[in-house]
Amino acid sequence: MCAAAPYNYNCRNHYRRLSSPAPREGLERKVVAALDLSASKGPIVVERAVVLERVGDLRAQLDAARAQGRTVGFVPTMGAFHDGHRSLMRAARARHDVVVVSLFVNPLQFGPAEDLDRYPKDLAGDVAGAAAEGVDIVFAPPVEEMYPGTDFSPDGAPPLTTVSVAGLTGGLCGSARPGHFDGVATVVAKLFGIVGPSTAYFGKKDAQQLAVVRRLVADLCLPVEIVGCPLVREADGMAMSSRNRNLSPAEREAATVIHRGLQTGADVVMAGERDAGKLRRVVANVLTTEPLVRLEYAEVVAADTLSPLEVLDGEVLVAVAARVGDVRLIDNMTVRVDGRGAVVDLGVNVAPTGEGGLCAAR
Amino acid sequence: MCAAAPYNYNCRNHYRRLSSPAPREGLERKVVAALDLSASKGPIVVERAVVLERVGDLRAQLDAARAQGRTVGFVPTMGAFHDGHRSLMRAARARHDVVVVSLFVNPLQFGPAEDLDRYPKDLAGDVAGAAAEGVDIVFAPPVEEMYPGTDFSPDGAPPLTTVSVAGLTGGLCGSARPGHFDGVATVVAKLFGIVGPSTAYFGKKDAQQLAVVRRLVADLCLPVEIVGCPLVREADGMAMSSRNRNLSPAEREAATVIHRGLQTGADVVMAGERDAGKLRRVVANVLTTEPLVRLEYAEVVAADTLSPLEVLDGEVLVAVAARVGDVRLIDNMTVRVDGRGAVVDLGVNVAPTGEGGLCAAR
Repeated sequence: MCAAAPYNYNCRNHYRRLSSPAPREGLERKVVAALDLSASKGPIVVERAVVLERVGDLRAQLDAARAQGRTVGFVPTMGAFHDGHRSLMRAARARHDVVVVSLFVNPLQFGPAEDLDRYPKDLAGDVAGAAAEGVDIVFAPPVEEMYPGTDFSPDGAPPLTTVSVAGLTGGLCGSARPGHFDGVATVVAKLFGIVGPSTAYFGKKDAQQLAVVRRLVADLCLPVEIVGCPLVREADGMAMSSRNRNLSPAEREAATVIHRGLQTGADVVMAGERDAGKLRRVVANVLTTEPLVRLEYAEVVAADTLSPLEVLDGEVLVAVAARVGDVRLIDNMTVRVDGRGAVVDLGVNVAPTGEGGLCAAR
Repeated sequence: MCAAAPYNYNCRNHYRRLSSPAPREGLERKVVAALDLSASKGPIVVERAVVLERVGDLRAQLDAARAQGRTVGFVPTMGAFHDGHRSLMRAARARHDVVVVSLFVNPLQFGPAEDLDRYPKDLAGDVAGAAAEGVDIVFAPPVEEMYPGTDFSPDGAPPLTTVSVAGLTGGLCGSARPGHFDGVATVVAKLFGIVGPSTAYFGKKDAQQLAVVRRLVADLCLPVEIVGCPLVREADGMAMSSRNRNLSPAEREAATVIHRGLQTGADVVMAGERDAGKLRRVVANVLTTEPLVRLEYAEVVAADTLSPLEVLDGEVLVAVAARVGDVRLIDNMTVRVDGRGAVVDLGVNVAPTGEGGLCAAR
């Protein structure tokens, strides 16, 4: 991490030098009647969002914006937007002159037996959704734009340059998904190199990913502020995930036990429990009551280092992963424990109208 | 690499947005009578160069300079300057408003049995030398500033985040120095994150390092132009190296056989030889005539991929490594071969007055 400032306290100002409050007009925006996403020549434009597929095109736009003193806020996504994604876009929109959302299902973070091919894709819907949130640019590169010359087939040649964050990536989801977080770290470093944002927004639902990205940014002294935004839940408490749409109705119903396990854990913490092992078992026991749900892990770890804890102290992450049918789901809560007591953060629930919680800096 | 532009052709313009030809005054420069390098509070200043040890201090200066429209040229070094280093500084000085030289002997790129402790150090001389070349800022961070919380002892904890460039790093010096180029790639990515240069200058003497850095920048889409500068030789042809000062007079004399081997190779190429194996043996045979010199390798590879060649074609790197006493030395030449003939680049020789060759973009 930057020794001058743990995490990216100072790094956040690296690009902010350009943050004079310039008016937001100036980026080319057009309204077109119909999306034609098959045409890759020139920008595809919908509402206010420009869709770009090429690194060079994106850079040209962002270089011009920065030269005019504008800041760039960045939301990296794999698409298939839900209210969690939308809350990130809103958080970025509130703070930046230019908001870029990337939409890229990164093959490098999927194992050979994982659901890369089944990962939900809805480009047209995502572009419309981003535009509705006031996003300026949707960056949707083809795989060959991000990894030219790379063959992701089982016998293929992987990318030569990779970024690895050791220590944080072996446990939790890293156990079941070897190489996953190296893939995340590599594509995030690359997207930061392409976009050059002053700030990037990540959901706290992917708690391990957020810890890895924070560490990556700190260790490589990348000039990007990382903001973690609250986990967003459905009205029934289920954590929003693009993968939820791959659940059958019965599986979707059964999967609510994951949230109930965490809620039960929250209750015992609020009642005074500080033993990490007991908390872990309380959460796990709830999840194992549901036959359609196969618990993969329930862990209680330090939120920054992800090291297992014996006693709840400081910023604590309670993380669970489970398989429901073919779908792997994760959920978590954070607990801040000090001498005065405990504060549990289970995220925010959306109202049935779809109003998601706004994101606050971590 | 950035698909939009092989290598960093487009990337080079990422920071150049700020390259309006502003006047160069404005960075704080002071003249002081004596260096006091023990005082780490506040900048140490000599002639025109400000010496900074802290990431935060460096960023503050460079953010201010960039906000005024200035470009930053960067020369990463391990210190112990010779005319090769000075040629990089001159190349940067000729093109940029602000020139930063880093001076950091990176423990991460030294193996446990290597010469980290014996690597020549001359901070006061280096700072004076940089100032004489018109360098604005010397960034000389302590190890704990670059790798906080890291213990480089044999039983210690290595840094969590590392950058690796596979494929280019297994052969040549990578065989004898496992992990070396991961250490280089990691510190270069980090220094780029700290300095944010528009352009960085590397010597072609470290040809494998240059290939690794080019690939790193391309693969991670870092917005930095990489310029390779000619290998600089002593008047007798010996490639300049900070390690040369660790040679005894007899070893120094014997080591000139390395250059003579390459020169002999150049002669046979100019006479029409295109067989890579024969060229390799010609070079190796010259080096093995000197009993004080132990040849480690003589290889003929493609200059960009470092893949071994059978026939000379395109941009070719002829690289050698040898041990002379306890000192490991490397040298190389590049050969451009096409249907019209061959052009050999052995670098530039300095005149006895110390005037090194100027650097041209690759």
